[in-house]
Amino acid sequence: MAFHSESQLAFLPIEQVAKLLRRREVSPLDLVDTSLARIERLNPALHAFLTVVADRARRQARAAGREIQRGKWLGPLHGIPVSLKDNICTRGIPTTAGSKILADFVPRVDAEVAFRLARAGAILLGKTNLHEFAYGVTTENPHFGPTRNPWARDHIPGGSSGGSAAAVAAGLCYASVGTDTGGSIRIPSALCGIVGLKPTSGLVSLAGIVPLAESLDHAGPLTRSVSDACIVLQAIAGEYPEGAAPPDYRKLRKDRPRRFRLGWPKHYFFERVDDEIRRAIEKAAECFESLGARIEEVSLPKLADSVAPSTNIALAEATHYHESQGFYPARAKEYGEDVQERLEWGTRVRAVDYIHALGLRREVQRDFDAAFERVDAILAPTTPIAAPPLGETEVTIAGETEPVRSALLRLNRPANFTGHPAMSIPCGFTAESLPMGLQLIGPRWGESRLLAIARAYEEATEWHKRHPVLTADT
Amino acid sequence: MAFHSESQLAFLPIEQVAKLLRRREVSPLDLVDTSLARIERLNPALHAFLTVVADRARRQARAAGREIQRGKWLGPLHGIPVSLKDNICTRGIPTTAGSKILADFVPRVDAEVAFRLARAGAILLGKTNLHEFAYGVTTENPHFGPTRNPWARDHIPGGSSGGSAAAVAAGLCYASVGTDTGGSIRIPSALCGIVGLKPTSGLVSLAGIVPLAESLDHAGPLTRSVSDACIVLQAIAGEYPEGAAPPDYRKLRKDRPRRFRLGWPKHYFFERVDDEIRRAIEKAAECFESLGARIEEVSLPKLADSVAPSTNIALAEATHYHESQGFYPARAKEYGEDVQERLEWGTRVRAVDYIHALGLRREVQRDFDAAFERVDAILAPTTPIAAPPLGETEVTIAGETEPVRSALLRLNRPANFTGHPAMSIPCGFTAESLPMGLQLIGPRWGESRLLAIARAYEEATEWHKRHPVLTADT
Repeated sequence: MAFHSESQLAFLPIEQVAKLLRRREVSPLDLVDTSLARIERLNPALHAFLTVVADRARRQARAAGREIQRGKWLGPLHGIPVSLKDNICTRGIPTTAGSKILADFVPRVDAEVAFRLARAGAILLGKTNLHEFAYGVTTENPHFGPTRNPWARDHIPGGSSGGSAAAVAAGLCYASVGTDTGGSIRIPSALCGIVGLKPTSGLVSLAGIVPLAESLDHAGPLTRSVSDACIVLQAIAGEYPEGAAPPDYRKLRKDRPRRFRLGWPKHYFFERVDDEIRRAIEKAAECFESLGARIEEVSLPKLADSVAPSTNIALAEATHYHESQGFYPARAKEYGEDVQERLEWGTRVRAVDYIHALGLRREVQRDFDAAFERVDAILAPTTPIAAPPLGETEVTIAGETEPVRSALLRLNRPANFTGHPAMSIPCGFTAESLPMGLQLIGPRWGESRLLAIARAYEEATEWHKRHPVLTADT
Repeated sequence: MAFHSESQLAFLPIEQVAKLLRRREVSPLDLVDTSLARIERLNPALHAFLTVVADRARRQARAAGREIQRGKWLGPLHGIPVSLKDNICTRGIPTTAGSKILADFVPRVDAEVAFRLARAGAILLGKTNLHEFAYGVTTENPHFGPTRNPWARDHIPGGSSGGSAAAVAAGLCYASVGTDTGGSIRIPSALCGIVGLKPTSGLVSLAGIVPLAESLDHAGPLTRSVSDACIVLQAIAGEYPEGAAPPDYRKLRKDRPRRFRLGWPKHYFFERVDDEIRRAIEKAAECFESLGARIEEVSLPKLADSVAPSTNIALAEATHYHESQGFYPARAKEYGEDVQERLEWGTRVRAVDYIHALGLRREVQRDFDAAFERVDAILAPTTPIAAPPLGETEVTIAGETEPVRSALLRLNRPANFTGHPAMSIPCGFTAESLPMGLQLIGPRWGESRLLAIARAYEEATEWHKRHPVLTADT
């Protein structure tokens, strides 16, 4: 501990912390104590955590310390404090999904991702706040209160994994695992200035995670650096198909692409985007060119037609889950107004339109697959705006007013619709000092190269090194 | 021709006809002329064919004759006259799908199955009548008139492939290819006393076939014997997955099972079945025992819950197709009353219920897969009744009245819902001399063994040797 101030330690990359742990310059208990102290000081203002399991975490930290001392090192997550979004089941620890309906739910088993993180030696500090049932993008939770953006507390952190993003951005933990059905990892990552990765559909198990929309759901890491995202992904990912290269954080630097091609979407992704954000993405493109990238236009003509179909899939699958559990409509009044309304919309989606959406989905998937024959990744903004103020329901972009919800979702939904991996990485700050996110979408099972490309950009920029100035006052 | 009367020749098994062709005892033209003469004489009463392509068939027969003479034999279908259900696209030949809406549709390409039959040397005589858009089980076609059952012309042949079944049963062709979305191959096969095979989902290409319900549709053979069904299946089937044995008609006899296990369903398949039919299936089970089979009860508990869900899938997918083509609701009045009504019902299926159905489908599939760990095939009636009289809409079985439609469908739908291969083979006649069908359902990709089991039964019985007495009067 001698060489590091509490806040220096709290923001170190996982790989570096792991080195300190192995050299016994810090212990897992030091890390947990530091995190718990920060949570105690900062969480009342941020409201990032819903549940903190301090004693359990300290106990596990001591055990991890003994193991590392005995030379039984489990890998870079061994002894590292992490958090889980509160829709991810944890044995013996409440899992509310941010809802009143599951307020008293204490799972008897761990979700697969929780089990895998524990097996990798990570230490769970607690469960993070989210939009109720992950069904929204602001994390203004009507039952447990809103999470606040560490960069500006009167702004939303984005959602639905807003608690995870705020906790990571504020240095309350080293990483979190969230879920992403229409952008719920990438949106809060962009709005909180961190790295969020939605992996290829099917790569990370959804077992033991409260579903939102079955065929669109994904779980993935929220971290402060690309290398950290890679470390967490390695711990939680299932099997890659033959021929695909699984990511390896030790190779990330070596795998740095020398010559690569990036796609600049002709359609959809740059329509109605704030000037500041568009310029930041253009700057990022220039940076990539200086790193050896060739930027090519890519055509995704059917994407514009996919907005309503992809919404229909989300609405219908969400309502299907809540009906199948007997939650809706029986307990309709226990939901927040916004979620209740969307569940009602879901009952009205016609099967015929759902089937149409599944057909269009295959076509849009083919369009993306065709684009990835030509480019290594597609560049886009993660969101067309930076974090809006708390309570705002509408936003004006390029003279047009639209709901905050659709503004934050619309550039993220495509990768859920098609199942391609997508990540958000910090790419600058607005004049108001709010973070902006660059989205990189890659070919199916292409996380390894996607991370290497993101890492090259990160290395060439300083955005990820800035952290919010945090005070304890609420 | 010398050794065979017209009607002897018309009812010969394909393998035997192929031998006569190779020995030049008959020519393809003899066969086509015989078939055309029978069609001319009998089709006005049966109304099995909608379109006959006499000149084209004769031309192709002459060409096939020359090829066989030159020693270029393509296999057992070379020179054999066949028909196709009129929802299967044929280049340059009208393909009405039994509808007014497609009455003038002349496809520019062949369906994959049409192409494959032609490549195997089969000679297309024409296109057979069907329930409008294959969306019904009686073949009482309001636009082109009803097909009549060759065994009793005031009775329906069943449907939707009623024209194919009647044509094969009446010896107007040697085989037909039909489609089966809820029993449309097996129902008319049972009601007309022939063999009908619905293969494993995905085995036979649906390319170029007018869809009914995308995820339930199958194409397959209607023939007079198990060996004939095998020959046609070999011609139209795509690739089997590794490890599965593709069927081979030359091995059918040799592959006769010595010891095998058959499943007698405890649930669903014997509820509300006519006594005559139940007894016929029980007799068939005894016959199988004498052939070396052990009969075991199998449990399919979730099947009863699958009736509404499987109907919802059919309704929604059918309406989706007709909406996507701009046929419905724009041209609603051009449909028969029954089809129009069902298309309307399809608009009202909720996406939530469709999603529920897809979930239940996976469960029922697992139940069947589990049963096939224990037995080689499941025994059931194809239909709980024999052919009802034309115009009948309701039927009373074991004291309970139900619509003819649901009575004919309900024992067939499970294999469409789960995608397992299923066939109907003749197993007796009612007191009224109407044929009865035995259904055998097998494991996925298990057509080879399923056919061998069916073949063993066929060899031990005489039912398939009886043919309807046909006269030309209408």
